[in-house]
Amino acid sequence: MPLLPLPKIIIEPLVRAALCEDLGRAGDITTDAIVPPALAARAVLRARDKGIVAGLEFAKLAFELADPKISLQTGIEDGGSVAAGSVIASVIGPARGILTAERTALNFLCRLSGIATATASLVAAVKGSKARIVCTRKTTPGLRAAEKYAVRAGGGGNHRFGLDDAILIKDNHIAIAGGITQALRRARAAAGHLVKIEVEIEDPGQLAEALAEGADAVLLDNMSLDMLARAVALARGRAITEASGRVTSASARAIAATGVDLISAGWLTHSAPALDIGLDVEVRAKG
Amino acid sequence: MPLLPLPKIIIEPLVRAALCEDLGRAGDITTDAIVPPALAARAVLRARDKGIVAGLEFAKLAFELADPKISLQTGIEDGGSVAAGSVIASVIGPARGILTAERTALNFLCRLSGIATATASLVAAVKGSKARIVCTRKTTPGLRAAEKYAVRAGGGGNHRFGLDDAILIKDNHIAIAGGITQALRRARAAAGHLVKIEVEIEDPGQLAEALAEGADAVLLDNMSLDMLARAVALARGRAITEASGRVTSASARAIAATGVDLISAGWLTHSAPALDIGLDVEVRAKG
Amino acid sequence: MPLLPLPKIIIEPLVRAALCEDLGRAGDITTDAIVPPALAARAVLRARDKGIVAGLEFAKLAFELADPKISLQTGIEDGGSVAAGSVIASVIGPARGILTAERTALNFLCRLSGIATATASLVAAVKGSKARIVCTRKTTPGLRAAEKYAVRAGGGGNHRFGLDDAILIKDNHIAIAGGITQALRRARAAAGHLVKIEVEIEDPGQLAEALAEGADAVLLDNMSLDMLARAVALARGRAITEASGRVTSASARAIAATGVDLISAGWLTHSAPALDIGLDVEVRAKG
Amino acid sequence: MPLLPLPKIIIEPLVRAALCEDLGRAGDITTDAIVPPALAARAVLRARDKGIVAGLEFAKLAFELADPKISLQTGIEDGGSVAAGSVIASVIGPARGILTAERTALNFLCRLSGIATATASLVAAVKGSKARIVCTRKTTPGLRAAEKYAVRAGGGGNHRFGLDDAILIKDNHIAIAGGITQALRRARAAAGHLVKIEVEIEDPGQLAEALAEGADAVLLDNMSLDMLARAVALARGRAITEASGRVTSASARAIAATGVDLISAGWLTHSAPALDIGLDVEVRAKG
Amino acid sequence: MPLLPLPKIIIEPLVRAALCEDLGRAGDITTDAIVPPALAARAVLRARDKGIVAGLEFAKLAFELADPKISLQTGIEDGGSVAAGSVIASVIGPARGILTAERTALNFLCRLSGIATATASLVAAVKGSKARIVCTRKTTPGLRAAEKYAVRAGGGGNHRFGLDDAILIKDNHIAIAGGITQALRRARAAAGHLVKIEVEIEDPGQLAEALAEGADAVLLDNMSLDMLARAVALARGRAITEASGRVTSASARAIAATGVDLISAGWLTHSAPALDIGLDVEVRAKG
Amino acid sequence: MPLLPLPKIIIEPLVRAALCEDLGRAGDITTDAIVPPALAARAVLRARDKGIVAGLEFAKLAFELADPKISLQTGIEDGGSVAAGSVIASVIGPARGILTAERTALNFLCRLSGIATATASLVAAVKGSKARIVCTRKTTPGLRAAEKYAVRAGGGGNHRFGLDDAILIKDNHIAIAGGITQALRRARAAAGHLVKIEVEIEDPGQLAEALAEGADAVLLDNMSLDMLARAVALARGRAITEASGRVTSASARAIAATGVDLISAGWLTHSAPALDIGLDVEVRAKG
Repeated sequence: MPLLPLPKIIIEPLVRAALCEDLGRAGDITTDAIVPPALAARAVLRARDKGIVAGLEFAKLAFELADPKISLQTGIEDGGSVAAGSVIASVIGPARGILTAERTALNFLCRLSGIATATASLVAAVKGSKARIVCTRKTTPGLRAAEKYAVRAGGGGNHRFGLDDAILIKDNHIAIAGGITQALRRARAAAGHLVKIEVEIEDPGQLAEALAEGADAVLLDNMSLDMLARAVALARGRAITEASGRVTSASARAIAATGVDLISAGWLTHSAPALDIGLDVEVRAKG
Repeated sequence: MPLLPLPKIIIEPLVRAALCEDLGRAGDITTDAIVPPALAARAVLRARDKGIVAGLEFAKLAFELADPKISLQTGIEDGGSVAAGSVIASVIGPARGILTAERTALNFLCRLSGIATATASLVAAVKGSKARIVCTRKTTPGLRAAEKYAVRAGGGGNHRFGLDDAILIKDNHIAIAGGITQALRRARAAAGHLVKIEVEIEDPGQLAEALAEGADAVLLDNMSLDMLARAVALARGRAITEASGRVTSASARAIAATGVDLISAGWLTHSAPALDIGLDVEVRAKG
Repeated sequence: MPLLPLPKIIIEPLVRAALCEDLGRAGDITTDAIVPPALAARAVLRARDKGIVAGLEFAKLAFELADPKISLQTGIEDGGSVAAGSVIASVIGPARGILTAERTALNFLCRLSGIATATASLVAAVKGSKARIVCTRKTTPGLRAAEKYAVRAGGGGNHRFGLDDAILIKDNHIAIAGGITQALRRARAAAGHLVKIEVEIEDPGQLAEALAEGADAVLLDNMSLDMLARAVALARGRAITEASGRVTSASARAIAATGVDLISAGWLTHSAPALDIGLDVEVRAKG
Repeated sequence: MPLLPLPKIIIEPLVRAALCEDLGRAGDITTDAIVPPALAARAVLRARDKGIVAGLEFAKLAFELADPKISLQTGIEDGGSVAAGSVIASVIGPARGILTAERTALNFLCRLSGIATATASLVAAVKGSKARIVCTRKTTPGLRAAEKYAVRAGGGGNHRFGLDDAILIKDNHIAIAGGITQALRRARAAAGHLVKIEVEIEDPGQLAEALAEGADAVLLDNMSLDMLARAVALARGRAITEASGRVTSASARAIAATGVDLISAGWLTHSAPALDIGLDVEVRAKG
Repeated sequence: MPLLPLPKIIIEPLVRAALCEDLGRAGDITTDAIVPPALAARAVLRARDKGIVAGLEFAKLAFELADPKISLQTGIEDGGSVAAGSVIASVIGPARGILTAERTALNFLCRLSGIATATASLVAAVKGSKARIVCTRKTTPGLRAAEKYAVRAGGGGNHRFGLDDAILIKDNHIAIAGGITQALRRARAAAGHLVKIEVEIEDPGQLAEALAEGADAVLLDNMSLDMLARAVALARGRAITEASGRVTSASARAIAATGVDLISAGWLTHSAPALDIGLDVEVRAKG
Repeated sequence: MPLLPLPKIIIEPLVRAALCEDLGRAGDITTDAIVPPALAARAVLRARDKGIVAGLEFAKLAFELADPKISLQTGIEDGGSVAAGSVIASVIGPARGILTAERTALNFLCRLSGIATATASLVAAVKGSKARIVCTRKTTPGLRAAEKYAVRAGGGGNHRFGLDDAILIKDNHIAIAGGITQALRRARAAAGHLVKIEVEIEDPGQLAEALAEGADAVLLDNMSLDMLARAVALARGRAITEASGRVTSASARAIAATGVDLISAGWLTHSAPALDIGLDVEVRAKG
């Protein structure tokens, strides 16, 4: 399955804003004071830990926006795995721009690669099952499209991108509506024909209601493995099943073994540790 | 020491952008389909884990931007600690707006509280020493001011906010300049009179050079505790000392014991896990 | 079925930009030269033709942004019908602001009401059938969310809001993939679990392929009524059917009679004539 | 008379915003799922109806912003006429980008060409007279500069671009001022030396007042042809005359025959139907 | 003649951007460190020199954006004159916000008052003549609307606001067209009916051409007083006359005595010294 | 000492906004009406007065944004001095773009060169002393980074860039804190380790306090030369000394002779007259 890309028209403003955030009003005063403008350098982006890379285009743009004469070259693509110590990409061009953009490039690359790496660890844990690892809307404000992309780069799938592209009926909605049946009917009446409806389920009675009303998917949150397995059996062929809650590399395999279609984990985007990547300047003339 | 606040004029555009990111082009279609417009609700933001709270103003604004008739009330302030299960704040107003803004409010609050909590854990680890825990520029693109604020809420201090507000001479700058002396002289010549200069030190010879040139601070990166202690002794009274590299709750006390002034940790902003906070709707009429 | 609203946080920047576009660099020089600042006025927004109103919140905001002391009061809501000559709303406050915002308010209100009115005419034409009138992505650049809302106000439904919230496989995609089966398989493999897939169908063979591959919906473009009826019969119970092409008030009833689920018409958003609404200043003192 | 162009610096942000509006947070998921990244294609923009083209630069930019490797080539210019079925331009480059930008390119091109075509129909209707067809401020919010340009492409002229570039005294201003004389005097006192003043006239008495006060132009709104002719005769050589109200291809010739200088029609920008233009992919390899 | 105001919707973004520019990423660290949040203060804006005030609304907004609890009260309006040492306005509210917004408020107020004061000095110099003092497009990038407003507050008038609201044919245009007659004909053919045309004149021959072609105004740049007087005599009743070049308080009266209609001076906006205004905190409790 | 540059990513949005401000909604109607699109021209930017140039990159970008086919070539760099009448740069390309961007390019270039020239005059006045000329935060709203850069180009240094990059304790802060000692202690407790602290001093007692508390710098505002000299003597070797108040080319030398480290002058950015630079079209074919 191909990695669905993130349009450059979406990436560019994010990188531009981040670079400006770092430059502030006076720019990189350290580099500008010390490094001569004409000095050229070659540097490499090197993984300090093993992981899955995501965000190469962000890094490339950070360097190019600092100085269009900088080029970034790489033999791998987002979604590729790197060993600890291996080179991810080379960066060639004016030394000033390389040093100025270094932190912006790494801040994107390390975060997105961290998300991809965490996703890949869950994907590996459920290998052999049919379960798909997906993320949630628990993303960093301003970076949702980027973080969802990083999950894809790690081999995962995406849940809703926002409040507007699918209906997800949660416990509060159900209580307000007076039950799953009423909630689903209201949702169905309002939904466009290309909008799917998922409903959060807490017990078998709710599940029966949801299936009877034709929910497209059911969210089984924080259920025991036994309950999960029973729910999956009931829903089979009638609705997509999604498990969530306390999903870790350790627990994911057992959850997947229940036959659930999807396993969602909010921590992939809100708490995955950054992948440690550094920039090493390899060739530099004295200036 | 008072917590230096973050101006509301900086917070508001971040929250507005995040809410718009979640609303997309059609808004919260689930809530709008199911919840009657006139229905009022009361909800609480509740900590699921213990920690330090940061970002209450972000949460408040998320709800108010969704519906100005919503009010958020709280008895604690950013920097306060909460026990697992305790209520952080109450949210009262139209049910639609509360549910629509829930995720945006939590995405800010959980992330910033996670950073504050992680910071507080390091601060606690060095209690009794004079060492101050500080963050770095390894922040989430677009959220630097907010994340630096969260570090302050956790009892930590802030390093540079960008490339432009202080000079930090790193290994690559030194190599390009041809040594610490030359680098410091170039920096001093270019720096404004209110700009401090810190220089990264790898060995005692470099330290001697830096002190001789009058560096304001020295960054002692990834040194052994012994080397660190010796460097601190040499620098005492002449330059501020900062240790960095592999700083954890476990290692921080020993690092602090070397007498270092500052301990910096990038992971506070790039890899601190979010604090688990949820929104519970406590009172709701059926609609 | 309730009218799904458009969040004010989406409306406000559109109105602000439009008012600034009209004010230019010097503001309303006619009004400012002639009308004294303290003069109050009362005006009404009056329909010159009958139709369905949409965009009242846009008009209200235009006046309030021109002067927060202006209030707009109305007894009807978006989606309500008005007779020719009837009053839609009253506007009370400083005369300068009312005259300055008049055109901006009307430009939104007339356009959106025009779309709602056109939609309602198609909805009326298919009354009694199960067919739902929907719009397309042929919207005015920058106004998609607003125009989709106007279609809802007219009693219609919304198709995709963008390229990212559902999959719509068209003739070119099919040709590139080498057939409907291949296209659908590629789409299914990449799609998230809450993403529906619709495919454009040109003949019965394609329809059979699409149904066999489990397409959620089929788009039957520019088919004769006979072909349409046969396709609807084949798809019944297996996929949602959408007819498009040459949909007018005159043709819609016959199209609906084929039993199709949806009838889509691009002209609702790209070519619906504006509803004629004017502002009459009813009470004004001489200034 | 040359067609006054629209600066690219004004066009580019409009196209960028429209493309982002369509891409949303996830991009063109249909195309990205089905079309291989390396696949090249050739497509043509083809008029389905005859008309006048406007907006080629918008279309070109839409494709280039989707992928800078796409080029658009055309033998005609904005303002040129096309026959039904004729090719307007060729688009060559990566298939993905062509399909992704298709709708954005067409949304601009069809709307602007629709306005140009409608304008040209009125221009043709008054051919042989000295009357010039002009548009009003009844434009689509956000697109005023673009729509005014489209009117020029259709052979028409532009009235005010906003509230700030000329003075147009309407009935409400006159009533507030206490008469045309007072209104004109206030306006003249406040107006810059390069600001012209036009005043709306309802009867011969007002016209006499306006001419006596030296109005640059008079707006004769919704007058009978007889009244119009008399007013034009009175104003000849003293003020520019503009007729408005119920201007159609059918009525324009008679209005022009009164000798009026300008005929303005709001519907050119608020209600002109889009010109039907489609994108046909002509050469594509299977991917 | 009333002072044409500047719409608040134009002022607000300028003040917001300026305040953010000053706050940077960390805010007012001096004030936040030293001043307790609850401390209230009263301050006055006091003129250190005599002059004409302009920009009070900018100052008011700066304080309100820093803290909405601050109120600014004043007994004078833009365009009013102040003596050296006199109080312009009082500012009451939280001390932090007052100190934080002080510089932003003053940066607007001093600059705009400086422009108004300079304008008033020229206006006074030509008192008794019919000559009107006007500004040019030599304004500070980003502040044109504000600076043109300040000129009006000083009793002056505005020339063009941009390249688009009137036609001004300069020497280069004339040379390219091949003469004034050709240039004026091209301009007239392209200009809208509410667009005036002014042409720069270097000698009597050009003036005769311009008058013969019906130019609305003629710009007489850097002419001797004799030449100016002769040109004014020739143009009387046929075109508005504008003198420019080396206009100072000393030279303006003599220029006006030639009978010219307008005297334009670029330095009013590009080189007028700021009016010296300071903020004195008058009442403050110790915090 | 090298001139610290201003990043192009900061310059570009300023120039783009300024060009759009001048183009308005219709563009350069004079040039577009008169100058044929294909006509090429060569022009020079020529100094009418002697001075120091700053802002060449701004001018270059203005022309390129108007038309990318325009190139600007120059033999001097920002900070270089030019004689009256000398050529600063050549501009070659389409005549339309050159004329359209002329005013925007000059508005930046004249203002920034004016600041550089004023700065250089003070720098020259203190030549031979150790005093450095610096600017303040009294800058034009929106242009702080640019104007600070212009000061550097003139040979001066920069004071704080905003409220957030250093601590400057002024009289009001001192009064609120209850004295210099308390103010400095509060500031020190809150300040990051790379944040310097300067304090405003009014008399010798305050100076003694400030030195005792270890202030990094002291601001000696509006002191007599005698007082200044005594303060400098006291502070020598303990704190940086800055003099401000009534600094002119005439007074600067005497101030510098007191031995003060820095002399700051707000008028460099708020009241420096623009340098007179014009654009002469040298080669143009008739069009």
